[in-house]
Amino acid sequence: MRAWHFAERPEGEPTLDSFDLRETERPTPRHGELLVRVRYLSVDPYMRGRMRDSESYADPWDVGDVLRGGVVGEVVESEHDGYAAGDLVTGRGTWAEYSVLDADEAARVDPDVADLPAYLGILGMPGRTAYFGLLDVGDPQPGDTVVVSGAAGAVGSTVGQIAKLNGCRVVGFAGTEEKTSWLTDDLGFDAAINYKQTDDYRAALDDAAPEGVDVYFDNVGGPITDAVFTKLNLDARVAVCGQIAHYNDEEVPTGPRKLPLLIASRAKVEGLLVRDYAPRFDVARERLERWVASGAIDHRETVVEGLENAPDAFLGLFSGDNIGKQVVRVAE
Amino acid sequence: MRAWHFAERPEGEPTLDSFDLRETERPTPRHGELLVRVRYLSVDPYMRGRMRDSESYADPWDVGDVLRGGVVGEVVESEHDGYAAGDLVTGRGTWAEYSVLDADEAARVDPDVADLPAYLGILGMPGRTAYFGLLDVGDPQPGDTVVVSGAAGAVGSTVGQIAKLNGCRVVGFAGTEEKTSWLTDDLGFDAAINYKQTDDYRAALDDAAPEGVDVYFDNVGGPITDAVFTKLNLDARVAVCGQIAHYNDEEVPTGPRKLPLLIASRAKVEGLLVRDYAPRFDVARERLERWVASGAIDHRETVVEGLENAPDAFLGLFSGDNIGKQVVRVAE
Repeated sequence: MRAWHFAERPEGEPTLDSFDLRETERPTPRHGELLVRVRYLSVDPYMRGRMRDSESYADPWDVGDVLRGGVVGEVVESEHDGYAAGDLVTGRGTWAEYSVLDADEAARVDPDVADLPAYLGILGMPGRTAYFGLLDVGDPQPGDTVVVSGAAGAVGSTVGQIAKLNGCRVVGFAGTEEKTSWLTDDLGFDAAINYKQTDDYRAALDDAAPEGVDVYFDNVGGPITDAVFTKLNLDARVAVCGQIAHYNDEEVPTGPRKLPLLIASRAKVEGLLVRDYAPRFDVARERLERWVASGAIDHRETVVEGLENAPDAFLGLFSGDNIGKQVVRVAE
Repeated sequence: MRAWHFAERPEGEPTLDSFDLRETERPTPRHGELLVRVRYLSVDPYMRGRMRDSESYADPWDVGDVLRGGVVGEVVESEHDGYAAGDLVTGRGTWAEYSVLDADEAARVDPDVADLPAYLGILGMPGRTAYFGLLDVGDPQPGDTVVVSGAAGAVGSTVGQIAKLNGCRVVGFAGTEEKTSWLTDDLGFDAAINYKQTDDYRAALDDAAPEGVDVYFDNVGGPITDAVFTKLNLDARVAVCGQIAHYNDEEVPTGPRKLPLLIASRAKVEGLLVRDYAPRFDVARERLERWVASGAIDHRETVVEGLENAPDAFLGLFSGDNIGKQVVRVAE
């Protein structure tokens, strides 16, 4: 089978040089594991962190390793009583045609609820991140203004829609007209700011969030975030979910200091990782499935065809190529 | 009587030019008010914010106004049933020989519990700030490492001691050997770092906080804070109480971006203002008085003699002249 290996650590923005597609042996599942034929694999911004040779919340990839990531696929061989060949599952796998999954960490997918790619997006890790990050950290109240950066991504688009369900005014930042139109016309965002069409994010927020910002869900960092912090209302909550603007930085990035702003607003800024909410993943999944099934929340996936194009799909995350969740179709 | 008036708005570091001592009429209390002969008045870093012509959490002073601040004094004339001439009280007054206080906002002081200046420090606003900021925002747990900047100030010295009562390892930053010795030898801090003796705060923290930082109580901002953020443990809490390093900045200060650090640590950073805790001030006062009376917590005041020296006492806050609470003795 074919599998992508980690060829070299990038400096700054990654290139295709970091990836090496090799022919390799199909892995063999051990007790408690499943061999899965991968249908779709997920590429996510957090993977840039795994390319660094430093401990962080995700273990660094070793050069030479097969790349890892979320997959959806069909069980080919089961070494776990709960699963049989033919079952459709999602879990942590590899950038490969076949992956071995830990059955205890895997979950069934139901193609009647949503198409398979959705299980890597709104019904997968990004959906859960949006759910807990917004509801637990952001604590949105009816009437609040919620601002989301990276709003047309897998996480951001879900955050905005959950905020709408909670009675909030929702403003999203995104980088193309196609994205901003999707947010306002299809997803019900109250306003969307194309950050590539203006440098004055503060003025754009004066228009889009005239009553200030109560909740900021940050996937991006950088100048957008700098502007939002100047608009935080009393008791505002900031959920720091991602900082994709800085993932390729080789030096510690600098910018305006924000702590002085927090005293007057008594705002709370909190970093989050979705895995901390693992004991409640079932709750999120049940709710998200219900919202998706009822049409209360919409979702979208950008599908790149073919395992051979997985690195391009990953690199595209940093130029904003995706609308909604970026996935790679490995097999039909 | 004599009273200090606000003469002009400073740019950058304030000077004596902002202050004007004038002879003026002794004010007359109205219904519900007390005329108080001021014994001690408080100068506090937050007053720098009131010198700006911009709305913040404290209303800006108007040029020409009498300067306002906390005082302790003796009631000379009472227009409130609860107080009589001769009572010792503390409340919000003026930089003057006599002040009119709102009786409903005033509180009695008991010279048997502590000397009068303590009611502007550990038994006043700074003590309450320390109490709620540490316990509510910092949420210290036994065994936690708590780092305090501005540790020899009125707030910081109280924070560190309350953290010790809660079973924490406590590390303070201060700017003289006299201060660091006070922290470790008299107040029981586990370590104190003289930030004027080293540029490498990170290395100093590696020694003083070898298990990382669980709670950071920040009175200062700037490079000390930058270093502490690189040491935050999982689930760390940062209480942003003051940013005295930046109060004289005319431009928005810049520095290393901290949000990327918050994701891995899932740290929470929260600004605080003590007035939000007003409904529980009685609780703080009762506990702080008990701790002071029993000797569980020590306190210190730096007393400048004479109303005429109040501006110097205020300016000294920015050069760290004070140990513990800075007060001005206006009358015996």
